[in-house]
Amino acid sequence: ASYNLLLLPGDGIGPEVMAGVETVLAALKETGIASFETETDHVGGSAIDVHGKPLADATLARAKSADAILLGAVGGPKWTGVAYDIRPEAGLLRLRKDLGLFANLRPAICYPALADASALKRELVEGLDIMIVRELTGGVYFGEPKEITVLPDGSKRAVDTQVYTTGEIERIAHVAFDLARKRSGRVASAEKNNVMKSGVLWKEVVTQVHAQHYTDVELEHVLADNCAMQLVRRPKQFDVLVTDNLFGDVLSDVAAMLTGSLGMLPSASLGAAEDGGLRKALYEPVHGSAPDIAGADKANPIAMIGSLAMCLRYSFGLGEAADLIERAITDTLAAGTRTADIATDGAQAVGTKAMAEAIAAA
Amino acid sequence: ASYNLLLLPGDGIGPEVMAGVETVLAALKETGIASFETETDHVGGSAIDVHGKPLADATLARAKSADAILLGAVGGPKWTGVAYDIRPEAGLLRLRKDLGLFANLRPAICYPALADASALKRELVEGLDIMIVRELTGGVYFGEPKEITVLPDGSKRAVDTQVYTTGEIERIAHVAFDLARKRSGRVASAEKNNVMKSGVLWKEVVTQVHAQHYTDVELEHVLADNCAMQLVRRPKQFDVLVTDNLFGDVLSDVAAMLTGSLGMLPSASLGAAEDGGLRKALYEPVHGSAPDIAGADKANPIAMIGSLAMCLRYSFGLGEAADLIERAITDTLAAGTRTADIATDGAQAVGTKAMAEAIAAA
Ligand SMILES: CC(C)[C@H](C(=O)O)[C@@H](O)C(=O)O
Ligand SMILES: CC(C)[C@H](C(=O)O)[C@@H](O)C(=O)O
Repeated sequence: ASYNLLLLPGDGIGPEVMAGVETVLAALKETGIASFETETDHVGGSAIDVHGKPLADATLARAKSADAILLGAVGGPKWTGVAYDIRPEAGLLRLRKDLGLFANLRPAICYPALADASALKRELVEGLDIMIVRELTGGVYFGEPKEITVLPDGSKRAVDTQVYTTGEIERIAHVAFDLARKRSGRVASAEKNNVMKSGVLWKEVVTQVHAQHYTDVELEHVLADNCAMQLVRRPKQFDVLVTDNLFGDVLSDVAAMLTGSLGMLPSASLGAAEDGGLRKALYEPVHGSAPDIAGADKANPIAMIGSLAMCLRYSFGLGEAADLIERAITDTLAAGTRTADIATDGAQAVGTKAMAEAIAAA
Repeated sequence: ASYNLLLLPGDGIGPEVMAGVETVLAALKETGIASFETETDHVGGSAIDVHGKPLADATLARAKSADAILLGAVGGPKWTGVAYDIRPEAGLLRLRKDLGLFANLRPAICYPALADASALKRELVEGLDIMIVRELTGGVYFGEPKEITVLPDGSKRAVDTQVYTTGEIERIAHVAFDLARKRSGRVASAEKNNVMKSGVLWKEVVTQVHAQHYTDVELEHVLADNCAMQLVRRPKQFDVLVTDNLFGDVLSDVAAMLTGSLGMLPSASLGAAEDGGLRKALYEPVHGSAPDIAGADKANPIAMIGSLAMCLRYSFGLGEAADLIERAITDTLAAGTRTADIATDGAQAVGTKAMAEAIAAA
């Protein structure tokens, strides 16, 4: 079969790590395992430079008709200091919202070979394997009103609105429980029901979905502040962690940092299943655009290549091809190949390009 | 001078650690350094049991007339599962709001003797000394609307509102910059201006206050998700960290956990300076009510006793008495006395009472 992939390299190190994906795709094609048609377009700062806005309508249309989307990273100092609706990040937010990508899956895995790169003691993170399920199209990111008004005395008042409905919470809860069944059968749900009404509804709906459909899965409720603490104290207590958009933003960054392998972590943002069973989906590294090392052939392409593997698995059911890529990553690391971010003191680091080629060869 | 202190032991281990404060107050009185009149009242779950609500009006009135308030901890499984406005936590939130305690100061200090208790590698936390300045009476905690409505189809919609005004941000920024001047002269301000309008206003106002009054202080802006990451990766990069109510809740818990000394960390919640120069203030440990060990003489009273020291320093200008208490804590630890939470494997732990007595004696 041939699939249509939209590549959105974006800003900073985005184009370099995306080149790694193209290297791997070429290798997959050669071996005859799978073949893809790719299109490339702009998003974020690079789209602002070209089109004057971070997501052109034509790009959105392409994204809607593509079978899946791979995104590099957006943002950089060049485009800050302006109203946030015309910043690079706004392009990403609009993609998520307009494509209905409500479920953000962020695995936080500690690669054994890299456990020493973690800030945490080795025994606390060795073998760590958490799946964060973050709600991605609701909450304070998109609720209205969302505005700054000028008061009569010239001072200002800013408002953001966190909104969640039963339906929004139900569908993300299903994603979390379904994933838990394929993993260790445990879900932790994080909110602040002691302070927020959306937290009260969140807890209530997750509890209901659990009682009605997933009594075989173990469910634990945890306050978001305590959850952040527990992630640092004893991260391996968690398996699947489901939470809202804003808490998910912070907690998934903490979890990613714990692994010591930030440059290695992929993510998937999934929409609702469509008629053909296919979910609209976007795959991107957890790391950002790292403008300080952009263009220097220093970035680690593994998170981006791992995002391609997730894409093959979740969007196209190509589990074997995904396994192949993931094994190639593991083998390449086992052979001692390291980019600068994961090279232990003294070890020789390779560049972005060389790493991608090593993985493609493997 | 004689001051009037209101003691609110609260729930769980609250009463035990508050007993430690009384032990230390008695020792201070004996030595003639300072003398206090204390009153004791209920808050949280214990107030629900006695008065049917987590903060009786009479208790609030007492809090308003007291020179300062010491609080133990509130909450516990006994009082969960009900609407949150009549839960133990609601008593604490009402105290903060009605007393105007807008500035929550949370030091995160790693005691050298306890660096090994941290989940982080020793070199990352040794010497850690961060002061988190959390806005405490605004944001999503108190903004309206804050409600759950039932939709025509029977499903629900929950709304919370994050509101910040120029004035609210200005006054917390002043607290942070003033503190930084007495410390290492650096402030980091955390928000999500790439997603939230309140983050846009936050950044704008903090920038203005800095430019107008504190150009001698170094100011850095950081996104809250990245801040959480950086706290784990390299916590010592931060000195004073100022942020809003909700991010402060999560980030201060992360910072506290990093130190490995959660049972040791005090906090101060300060109001605006009144006519006499006195600020209305409440002091409490960062840790919670730990219902699992309540009544077992296992809790560490140091955070509570440290809160008394903060009280003497900030509310009464009794810096020397505060130093004395803090030195007594350090000496007691140096002598090897440990409660169970900070005892390293094999070492004999003492109880709450014995620890408080050792500090009082010192
Ligand atoms: C870039 C930004 C808008 C985004 C977010 O806050 O969701 C990022 O932090 C993320 O987690 O993907
Ligand atoms: C008990 C709870 C309402 C409170 C909060 O969320 O502020 C607590 O977590 C804290 O940080 O003091």
